[in-house]
Amino acid sequence: MSADSSTRPGESPAGAAARPRCIAVLTAGGDAPGMNAATRAVVRSAQGAGIEVLGVRRGYDGLVTGDLEPMSSRAVANIIQRGGTVLETSRSEAFRHQGGRERAARHLKERGADALVVIGGEGSLAGATVFHGETGLPVMVLPASIDNDVPGTDYSIGFDTAVNTALDAIDRIRDTAFAYERLFCVEVMGRDSGFIAVAVAVGAGAEAVVVPEIPLDMDDLMRRVEESQNRGKRASIIVVSEGPRTGGVLPLARALAGRFGIEPRIVVLGHIQRGGAPTARDRLLASRMGAGAVQALIDGAPSSLIGEERGEIVRVALDIARQKVRKLDPALIDLVHRLSI
Amino acid sequence: MSADSSTRPGESPAGAAARPRCIAVLTAGGDAPGMNAATRAVVRSAQGAGIEVLGVRRGYDGLVTGDLEPMSSRAVANIIQRGGTVLETSRSEAFRHQGGRERAARHLKERGADALVVIGGEGSLAGATVFHGETGLPVMVLPASIDNDVPGTDYSIGFDTAVNTALDAIDRIRDTAFAYERLFCVEVMGRDSGFIAVAVAVGAGAEAVVVPEIPLDMDDLMRRVEESQNRGKRASIIVVSEGPRTGGVLPLARALAGRFGIEPRIVVLGHIQRGGAPTARDRLLASRMGAGAVQALIDGAPSSLIGEERGEIVRVALDIARQKVRKLDPALIDLVHRLSI
Amino acid sequence: MSADSSTRPGESPAGAAARPRCIAVLTAGGDAPGMNAATRAVVRSAQGAGIEVLGVRRGYDGLVTGDLEPMSSRAVANIIQRGGTVLETSRSEAFRHQGGRERAARHLKERGADALVVIGGEGSLAGATVFHGETGLPVMVLPASIDNDVPGTDYSIGFDTAVNTALDAIDRIRDTAFAYERLFCVEVMGRDSGFIAVAVAVGAGAEAVVVPEIPLDMDDLMRRVEESQNRGKRASIIVVSEGPRTGGVLPLARALAGRFGIEPRIVVLGHIQRGGAPTARDRLLASRMGAGAVQALIDGAPSSLIGEERGEIVRVALDIARQKVRKLDPALIDLVHRLSI
Amino acid sequence: MSADSSTRPGESPAGAAARPRCIAVLTAGGDAPGMNAATRAVVRSAQGAGIEVLGVRRGYDGLVTGDLEPMSSRAVANIIQRGGTVLETSRSEAFRHQGGRERAARHLKERGADALVVIGGEGSLAGATVFHGETGLPVMVLPASIDNDVPGTDYSIGFDTAVNTALDAIDRIRDTAFAYERLFCVEVMGRDSGFIAVAVAVGAGAEAVVVPEIPLDMDDLMRRVEESQNRGKRASIIVVSEGPRTGGVLPLARALAGRFGIEPRIVVLGHIQRGGAPTARDRLLASRMGAGAVQALIDGAPSSLIGEERGEIVRVALDIARQKVRKLDPALIDLVHRLSI
Repeated sequence: MSADSSTRPGESPAGAAARPRCIAVLTAGGDAPGMNAATRAVVRSAQGAGIEVLGVRRGYDGLVTGDLEPMSSRAVANIIQRGGTVLETSRSEAFRHQGGRERAARHLKERGADALVVIGGEGSLAGATVFHGETGLPVMVLPASIDNDVPGTDYSIGFDTAVNTALDAIDRIRDTAFAYERLFCVEVMGRDSGFIAVAVAVGAGAEAVVVPEIPLDMDDLMRRVEESQNRGKRASIIVVSEGPRTGGVLPLARALAGRFGIEPRIVVLGHIQRGGAPTARDRLLASRMGAGAVQALIDGAPSSLIGEERGEIVRVALDIARQKVRKLDPALIDLVHRLSI
Repeated sequence: MSADSSTRPGESPAGAAARPRCIAVLTAGGDAPGMNAATRAVVRSAQGAGIEVLGVRRGYDGLVTGDLEPMSSRAVANIIQRGGTVLETSRSEAFRHQGGRERAARHLKERGADALVVIGGEGSLAGATVFHGETGLPVMVLPASIDNDVPGTDYSIGFDTAVNTALDAIDRIRDTAFAYERLFCVEVMGRDSGFIAVAVAVGAGAEAVVVPEIPLDMDDLMRRVEESQNRGKRASIIVVSEGPRTGGVLPLARALAGRFGIEPRIVVLGHIQRGGAPTARDRLLASRMGAGAVQALIDGAPSSLIGEERGEIVRVALDIARQKVRKLDPALIDLVHRLSI
Repeated sequence: MSADSSTRPGESPAGAAARPRCIAVLTAGGDAPGMNAATRAVVRSAQGAGIEVLGVRRGYDGLVTGDLEPMSSRAVANIIQRGGTVLETSRSEAFRHQGGRERAARHLKERGADALVVIGGEGSLAGATVFHGETGLPVMVLPASIDNDVPGTDYSIGFDTAVNTALDAIDRIRDTAFAYERLFCVEVMGRDSGFIAVAVAVGAGAEAVVVPEIPLDMDDLMRRVEESQNRGKRASIIVVSEGPRTGGVLPLARALAGRFGIEPRIVVLGHIQRGGAPTARDRLLASRMGAGAVQALIDGAPSSLIGEERGEIVRVALDIARQKVRKLDPALIDLVHRLSI
Repeated sequence: MSADSSTRPGESPAGAAARPRCIAVLTAGGDAPGMNAATRAVVRSAQGAGIEVLGVRRGYDGLVTGDLEPMSSRAVANIIQRGGTVLETSRSEAFRHQGGRERAARHLKERGADALVVIGGEGSLAGATVFHGETGLPVMVLPASIDNDVPGTDYSIGFDTAVNTALDAIDRIRDTAFAYERLFCVEVMGRDSGFIAVAVAVGAGAEAVVVPEIPLDMDDLMRRVEESQNRGKRASIIVVSEGPRTGGVLPLARALAGRFGIEPRIVVLGHIQRGGAPTARDRLLASRMGAGAVQALIDGAPSSLIGEERGEIVRVALDIARQKVRKLDPALIDLVHRLSI
């Protein structure tokens, strides 16, 4: 990610907007652990700077229907450790249409909000970009997505927690794998990106990992399992991303059963990966990004995604962020293979 | 459970067998958290009483093939907190046949074992009863089953851990249920018994619970969900036992979708319920039962299941234990309904 | 505990009071995990029976100052899994005086409450008994105490969670004990009762346990540690109850250092034992007790502690409950010693 | 950290040593979660490259006494998730002296080891540097330290786990803080560096943080607590690093009690921070570093610390690593203050 596409918080952009007096904040798309920590950071950073905050309920939908209410510092007390989002979230059909977005803009104007902070995933970033384009309203986006698939940032809020939750589940499965059953296929979240799968596979000491980005080489996988059995490994775990691109865990399990004559045990981790108290890392990331978003608004920075690149909080202009491409590190997949011998 | 069918450790039986000099211990059937704590308790209680212990690998199968080795106190160090079973387990086809059992008895005799301790579930109890009947060898059975379906005891080793693991998973789901999705159907373990499902449903504040023992009244369930929505409940969770008797979670989810027009989210907890560090209660139960089994052998008690009834460790003669019937407490199902309003 | 001192929910007492129309509920004394589950059960059981509920804030103190507000079923949504108490708690100086209690009674009368449910520990039971004696108001007490020291019940709400929290901490310490340091002294809660210490010691596979109820035999303990070292044990953990009666962990550690020339590592678990999501068992206990308290009021039962004895929910008249004595099971201490060889 | 002081794995150094045929691996200093994952990565990376591995027991001490044995891939099965270190560790007095180091070098030579991998903290790095200087033996150091105080890397193995463990403990304390007690002072690890304290303080939403690197401004801290109370905050948590430089938690608690007339609750988290299953991040870091160390030896790179800088695995020559200085990010301390309003 090149330096020209993102700016550090210290740098002043030209043509800065006026400092906001009131900002609205919402959480959109699927919920992710750390959204509450981000909301808290936005509210308190704003209040510390003398800026009022309006909390929007149920994401873009609440913006369309005008479901906003003032949020004080006390309103975000004791939520930093909570999963889910106290602002609630939804997928909004109305906001996909220009009419809906116009109603949203009207509500913001009526309530005196002169900027918007959106905490959400890739779809929310797209919505925010369109909304900013149509209204000119300053919008800052905090990437929150357990799948870690938001462009313009190395890490999204919720990813670290989801990976740890999945790993904790696999640690339990491992007990049975070593005591009784021998071969487990575990499906994790990530329909379009294998970040969870790869991180989990390294952490779980898995035999192999199947991700949407890379076509499955079934022969290679079979060979790995066979070699692993020949080497006398007592237990093998294969991690698979969910969704149509990998086919999920079932066809793979069937193929393994056909080849080796033993029925692999199947586990679909599902929605448990989405909840739970955020990890330290997700709280820290959310807190830094939330403060960074408010600072960007105070600085009059262009509407941006507030990301983390190589450990630093950066501002990536919305349209540039959307053009970026998230790529899996092939070295990690290689690491899975090399360490499972 | 009447007093005449079980004896307290203090009571001396008539015609007591000679004190054993060497006992074999094995874990059989599906693994359960606390099996290691039970193994440790058997080994150390025996060694403290000057009795040698042989550890059998892979359950009854290792007995048939003669896979036994001496276990010292040091061999069970640092395992009390481990899920799974260091002795490993299996389902043994060979032990189902008399020939296999004869080989097993021969191995025990050759190695000098004059008693056997079996840590396992209902099937293991059945096998132990037949084996004792054919060989006359003193056998003590420790009930270990996350499903809590072993007759002759109120609680089996592993149940408390499995319920807490399932509940921890549902606590995560709850975050999403309150933030975003509204209706969750969660499938838990227990093909033939609803103990896990009912305990989880109470602990999770579920709307309803579907168990194998009680035919599903779909109209009643639909009415509950409808009333719950009318009362303004933001989130509903329905807990379902796995397996053919309930049909599992899919048909129920389909019926709910058909009726309410919203797709319930489905979670199948699966094998994660079987692993993990045992809870305090399971470690305590396993420790007491393990010590109780060795004491029963020292006392020359008849071959028994070592159970817990109303808080006390009891000995239930094997054939009597097998005739007992485990019953769900209907008051708990009623409690689920009354507290979900 | 004899059958004559406690009644099962089915049994009708003579001279039953009229069915209440409105009950007040409060949490008093130190907070315990499961208090929220109990509050939820009281509120929903009452509402299901057409009885109004007033929630009292900050324990007896809120009763004295009149800090009561109506609680609906929705007010207790999504709290079953939360540690602490949403009603808050306190130690009330005012309620210790008759004047304070008279003000409390006046507030209850003015607000139409014709019964009170108290969720708290031994001190709260004492307060409830005096208050009932002076006012004649029906009072039901739910025992909630991580120390498990409330008379009239085998288990108090919060105990199971506290023990599991302490055990989880010791499992972490065990990693270091086996890798590096050799001797750990761990102080757990329970100033006047060793229930936590003994349960933790069994579950942690501790070498020894020091409790307030039994004078420490230092020679015996030294001998145990020495033998354990001679047997080649790589790590030893000693569990000690806090407080003046045991002296806590420091003098013991000093004595061990003096004798063995190695500085034992000291860990004081402290307040972490008091918080966290309640375990399945504590949620179940709290739910059953909460429902049981409301049922007792509906039945017009005498003012009672709602306890659990040998697995069943029982009503123990307040003055009888207070005369009962909680006793440690010496067999468990013996079990610690026998299984640590 | 400038580019000239560290090299990326791709870059070839001049004068590369011959590819090793056998390497020894040890864990030294205080144990840290992830040490086992690192050991596994070293062993399997080496074996995959046809290099033999000798495991050294009890750190440098085992090197001095010649306690080495061959480790196969199977020897590191099922340890990636374990806290502590299966190789054990110690503080070695003998290795501090040249005579001890000469014996260590002799043992390595006799056993055919032509390189050494050390997994440990700052002291272990110092020892490795001296040993390499005296013997010329290639040595790679993997930084493992919960305190995160090893120079030459942004993150050390074990830090992320320790922070999450501390945070989980404070989440429990928070329950009580909001229900009952109001002011908590929590002491975390880090005698000479405040990394744990600052990360925990952000994640816990603490009021203030006291670290060894910055002299405590007691007036400022008192003012913060007072303002927080004036703003109506229900609960306040202050995080303090252990050790003589901060004075630990006691003097601070006394000062707060003197000023506000309420006794703050004190919690010393202690050794629980050192254990437990490593987080996903620590397993990933350990796996990458372990593989990176073996690759560095294969590449014939100069003896280095294998660190992570800005997300990338780097090689920092031992003498350069030791000159680097770890600095707390003052922006994080500022973040604690700004988000606790």
